[in-house]
Amino acid sequence: MFRRLMAGLLLVIGLSAPALAEDGYDLWLRFRPLTGTALAGAEARLSAIATTAPEGLAAAELSRGLSGLLGRAVPIGTEGPLLVGTGDDPAIRALRLDLSDLGPDGYVIRTIGPRTVLAAQGGTGLLYGAYHLLRLAQTGARLDTLNIREVPRIERRILNHWDNLDRYVERGYAGQSIWDWHRLPDWHDPRYEDYARANASIGINGTVLNNVNANATILTAPYLDKVAALADIFRPYGIRVYLTARFSAPKEIGGLPHADPLDPAVAAWWGAKVAEIYARIPDFGGFLVKANSEGQPGPQDYGRTHADGANMLADALAPHGGIVMWRAFVYSDEVPDDRAKQAYAEFVPLDGSFRDNVLVQVKNGPIDFQPREPFHPLFGAMPKTKLMMEFQITKEYLGFATHLAYLAPMYKEALDADTFRPARGSTVARVADGSLDGHGLSAMAGVANIGSDRNWSGSTFDQANWYAYGRLAWNHGLSSEAIAREWIAASFSPDPAVLEPVLAMMLPSHQAVVDYMTPLGLHHLMGRGHHYGPGPWVDGGPRADWTSVYFHRATKDGIGFDRTRRGSDAVSQYAGPVADRFDKVETTPPDLLLWFHHLRWDRKLSTGRTVWAELLHRYGRGIAAVDDMITRWQGLEGRIDAARFKEVSTFLAIQRQEAQWWRDASVAYWQSINGLPLPPGEAPPPYPLSHYQSLSFPFAPGDGR
Amino acid sequence: MFRRLMAGLLLVIGLSAPALAEDGYDLWLRFRPLTGTALAGAEARLSAIATTAPEGLAAAELSRGLSGLLGRAVPIGTEGPLLVGTGDDPAIRALRLDLSDLGPDGYVIRTIGPRTVLAAQGGTGLLYGAYHLLRLAQTGARLDTLNIREVPRIERRILNHWDNLDRYVERGYAGQSIWDWHRLPDWHDPRYEDYARANASIGINGTVLNNVNANATILTAPYLDKVAALADIFRPYGIRVYLTARFSAPKEIGGLPHADPLDPAVAAWWGAKVAEIYARIPDFGGFLVKANSEGQPGPQDYGRTHADGANMLADALAPHGGIVMWRAFVYSDEVPDDRAKQAYAEFVPLDGSFRDNVLVQVKNGPIDFQPREPFHPLFGAMPKTKLMMEFQITKEYLGFATHLAYLAPMYKEALDADTFRPARGSTVARVADGSLDGHGLSAMAGVANIGSDRNWSGSTFDQANWYAYGRLAWNHGLSSEAIAREWIAASFSPDPAVLEPVLAMMLPSHQAVVDYMTPLGLHHLMGRGHHYGPGPWVDGGPRADWTSVYFHRATKDGIGFDRTRRGSDAVSQYAGPVADRFDKVETTPPDLLLWFHHLRWDRKLSTGRTVWAELLHRYGRGIAAVDDMITRWQGLEGRIDAARFKEVSTFLAIQRQEAQWWRDASVAYWQSINGLPLPPGEAPPPYPLSHYQSLSFPFAPGDGR
Repeated sequence: MFRRLMAGLLLVIGLSAPALAEDGYDLWLRFRPLTGTALAGAEARLSAIATTAPEGLAAAELSRGLSGLLGRAVPIGTEGPLLVGTGDDPAIRALRLDLSDLGPDGYVIRTIGPRTVLAAQGGTGLLYGAYHLLRLAQTGARLDTLNIREVPRIERRILNHWDNLDRYVERGYAGQSIWDWHRLPDWHDPRYEDYARANASIGINGTVLNNVNANATILTAPYLDKVAALADIFRPYGIRVYLTARFSAPKEIGGLPHADPLDPAVAAWWGAKVAEIYARIPDFGGFLVKANSEGQPGPQDYGRTHADGANMLADALAPHGGIVMWRAFVYSDEVPDDRAKQAYAEFVPLDGSFRDNVLVQVKNGPIDFQPREPFHPLFGAMPKTKLMMEFQITKEYLGFATHLAYLAPMYKEALDADTFRPARGSTVARVADGSLDGHGLSAMAGVANIGSDRNWSGSTFDQANWYAYGRLAWNHGLSSEAIAREWIAASFSPDPAVLEPVLAMMLPSHQAVVDYMTPLGLHHLMGRGHHYGPGPWVDGGPRADWTSVYFHRATKDGIGFDRTRRGSDAVSQYAGPVADRFDKVETTPPDLLLWFHHLRWDRKLSTGRTVWAELLHRYGRGIAAVDDMITRWQGLEGRIDAARFKEVSTFLAIQRQEAQWWRDASVAYWQSINGLPLPPGEAPPPYPLSHYQSLSFPFAPGDGR
Repeated sequence: MFRRLMAGLLLVIGLSAPALAEDGYDLWLRFRPLTGTALAGAEARLSAIATTAPEGLAAAELSRGLSGLLGRAVPIGTEGPLLVGTGDDPAIRALRLDLSDLGPDGYVIRTIGPRTVLAAQGGTGLLYGAYHLLRLAQTGARLDTLNIREVPRIERRILNHWDNLDRYVERGYAGQSIWDWHRLPDWHDPRYEDYARANASIGINGTVLNNVNANATILTAPYLDKVAALADIFRPYGIRVYLTARFSAPKEIGGLPHADPLDPAVAAWWGAKVAEIYARIPDFGGFLVKANSEGQPGPQDYGRTHADGANMLADALAPHGGIVMWRAFVYSDEVPDDRAKQAYAEFVPLDGSFRDNVLVQVKNGPIDFQPREPFHPLFGAMPKTKLMMEFQITKEYLGFATHLAYLAPMYKEALDADTFRPARGSTVARVADGSLDGHGLSAMAGVANIGSDRNWSGSTFDQANWYAYGRLAWNHGLSSEAIAREWIAASFSPDPAVLEPVLAMMLPSHQAVVDYMTPLGLHHLMGRGHHYGPGPWVDGGPRADWTSVYFHRATKDGIGFDRTRRGSDAVSQYAGPVADRFDKVETTPPDLLLWFHHLRWDRKLSTGRTVWAELLHRYGRGIAAVDDMITRWQGLEGRIDAARFKEVSTFLAIQRQEAQWWRDASVAYWQSINGLPLPPGEAPPPYPLSHYQSLSFPFAPGDGR
């Protein structure tokens, strides 16, 4: 008790001071002293915590956060206006709240007379409820008429870390991996617990620690000891650890001659390995597997199917309650007629053949996390299979850590898309949460943007994408705006003079990046390998579908990838109404136009502009949107702490410069192909195409290797 | 003025709070509020700053630090007991202080009546004096009888960063490189200025930003812009930037067919490149070069000498005032009879042939930063050449970041060694500071242990080695103990109850590592490549002199490398009296015994023990020293903040475990060679040799690549 009180007291002092130097480490868990009516409301309703489980993490977190908000220690005891407990607590039982369908993660927050009641079935639900309550207090919400009942829509809300064992993060733009493998299991970096707290506060309950481009060493005994140390730190926060499983591990670390999933010796090796893991980590989550994709080994090496491979691992995990997440991001060694069609072609025939504890993990779009893609045609096409969504939080194709791009609208676009399978209203979200097809187990994955940078994500605004992913994994019904409002209020201030301008920066920011990088449905036009900056001229190399020219197909006459029924027929992988819509220029959303259609440069669009003029228009619109963000941000000087103000200002200047670079380099390239003059009023690129092509970035961060 | 005052005020608040969560970021610049007589003394003598240059960095740093120490804003104005100024300041001139021989870096601190006077020839001297005065106040020194005159013994006090452009740090154990090249030159991480402040505070005035295993890309225009941005940040702190020059750069980025230093086209290319650098960085320091060593290109590729290569670069730099630091760490492609002899053999014939602005940079010992080496025989052997010392601060061979090893005693051992060239009293330090041979230009290099870890150095105690290097580069006459006392008082507390136990941990800590890793003059016994842990069995591979067996030469009968006149005759590279001493077992220091002698296992030593028993004795002594450190540290619980207490406790536990591992693995291996029983009382290794040999660390940090 005394320890908790002291912890609260120290935090009051400790947390109030860093307000002067906001280095971003606190993320959205900035519990700075409230003022005015927000303070009065919290004082009235949350000034002391009453619980029969004072040692619980929920009470501790409430005390920690509220002590910061109230500017004094908020005690945990038997008395107080904030009642926290499970149904086993007599004081809670007396209230006759319906806790029956909450499950392990759900909770109820209710105003009952002078009391605020937080109730759940167990500790994890209470913890989630505690963070919810703290968010309400922190963001100045009214606290006297609460009637909240929350149950997550998705059971497993998971981060994927593409972190190598040497601490290099593939597609990482925030320093190196936070996992200090060399000094684990002995040294517990305080950051590990702060990571768990941040994730729990937004409902994330799982983490895949290592890269999908996997190394079998993670499955050796010394590394499993290290993994177990992390699992022990994360467990109180309701977070399970998962690992990627390199399919060839039985050969590489097991001494077997091959890794054929149908060989009983291979299955037995995995069975023993899984038992070895569970002996150390009883709540181990399971495996994520990237197989037969981009050079990774897999069951096809032995003439077996993805299902053969996934099921073999699933059988090893099932006795312990573990799951397999099998990625659908695959494409064959031969260049296909259309890479967008590959995953569908490979996986749909396997529908119904996966074990119950297998989920197929599908990216939001059919290519690869491009600034804008149509939703992946697999959603809705495998009703007998559990499909889970994979979003990318790290901005591999969206300007790394220096471009401001709030990704909730992009996530929502995919989640809200209607698959029309079997009928209207069958959204991707309903497929992904299992409700459409009655699947009990559901999951969502987000490729993390977390690294060793002090601010975790490489920039302040990239923290918002981590936040938004967690919130949407919990409840995909939330709006992008609602999530942004929460994040801004928590991270900066609920003051409308701050909140509204920042909101106006964030909401259109994703579209701005689409516009200045890949407007009108263009895709995969970035620099080779590192994916930094424009590279519409990228050609040659080992595979046609790793080039830009494969995807934009620009000629003297036209531009775009014909995926209609007259072209690659990728449209037919969608349900009829969707396919019909994408098959026609007139009904294809302008933002997907050149994704599905090859159009003449001079074709008139519904906007009244030709394709060529519309491209130029959209580049300019994207740049103008960045200018607008800059203006809004400059208007906040004095209302934002100096450190973050300077960081964001600098990054916006970089974004502006790189937006112009994307436009100029792209325009110079398109002109080299189509020979067309610029539409009136459009400035010519300041350099010849050769200049843009000569730029080289051998040490751009995050390149796969 | 107001800005400075506010800065001071904010710092009072900002600096007092983090005392509760010491994450090590502040290093030794922890200006926490003083108490008792220390506070009274500082209040009496340093309560306000009087200067005619209130905008100077010295005054700002004094205000910042003193505001922290006094717990209130310390103003900068025209009145006050602390007078700060140059000889141009009338108030200083009136005092008739002798500032004539101070040079740009020196300063005077004097108590004159009620005043404390800090005077120097210019801003850099004042800044160094300011940090000195702050150190005195911070560590509780008496402030009423000051009479200090300081001039550095070495002109260029330089850090070498072995940082690659992808932020990987070779031999780095503190995260990744702090240079965020991708976001430079636009984004200025606040850490850059904190780095400059920390270095200036201990007198370091130069930094080589990139790895000696060099990449020519650093010399391209985009990277020079990035380098210039760093130079601009460092300049106010008196710190110059240097770069490593890849000798083959004219081929790799210059389009020339070769890099022959005697080809005028090559020289012209370097001349233009140097001019390009100075156009951006007018005070650029010069080049550090590792040539014809470990695969690096160099003049010998064209049949030219090291002098030919160094002089060509020196001629390019000379018009701009730049220098060349040419490393003597070279060894030929063929395995020599004794690698310890190579640098001497290659460089001594070149004495007198280097340009005036060339320094030859020599490691402290003839092999490679081993836990203990004799001093390098080049010191004293090239009187017509400027030799500079290269120390390693990062603990490549001394337990990485988790072993506590205070390295000042190791540095002092080299500096204080007497070369006897030309006569007794000709210490290595006098060679290295130029005084022995009347060289005007002098320099010292320390291979940095700095990385992106929050505490900069990977551990609290490794900060002491950065500190000690800087202090010794300034004044090699300082004792290890005096430096440790300063560092402990600044980093923890001047309270004797803290200072004395920590001092008792630090002073014997280097010898402890020598004892449990490589006792009795053994060397180069670590794991292959990454150098982590014991590997006395390492054999095979591309070169004999990259193996352990080459260096220990253990057989059934004996152990050690015979470098006497009857062996490789390496002893003859030293002056007569030194050679005589090392040539005989009886006069060789026990800690260098097996460095110079191959001895029978059963040979009785002066200690009364056989070689075999003495080895065992010393392993045990090293482990016992770690036990002693642990006991002392545990006794400090409650006197050290929780965060650092836990970190050090954990790292000591790792050190204890790894000390035992070194002993057990080494003993198991020696027994496999000599077949001898253990001396009485010595515990057998708990595992067979094969166990130790099977351990594998594919992702140990800092491995060269």
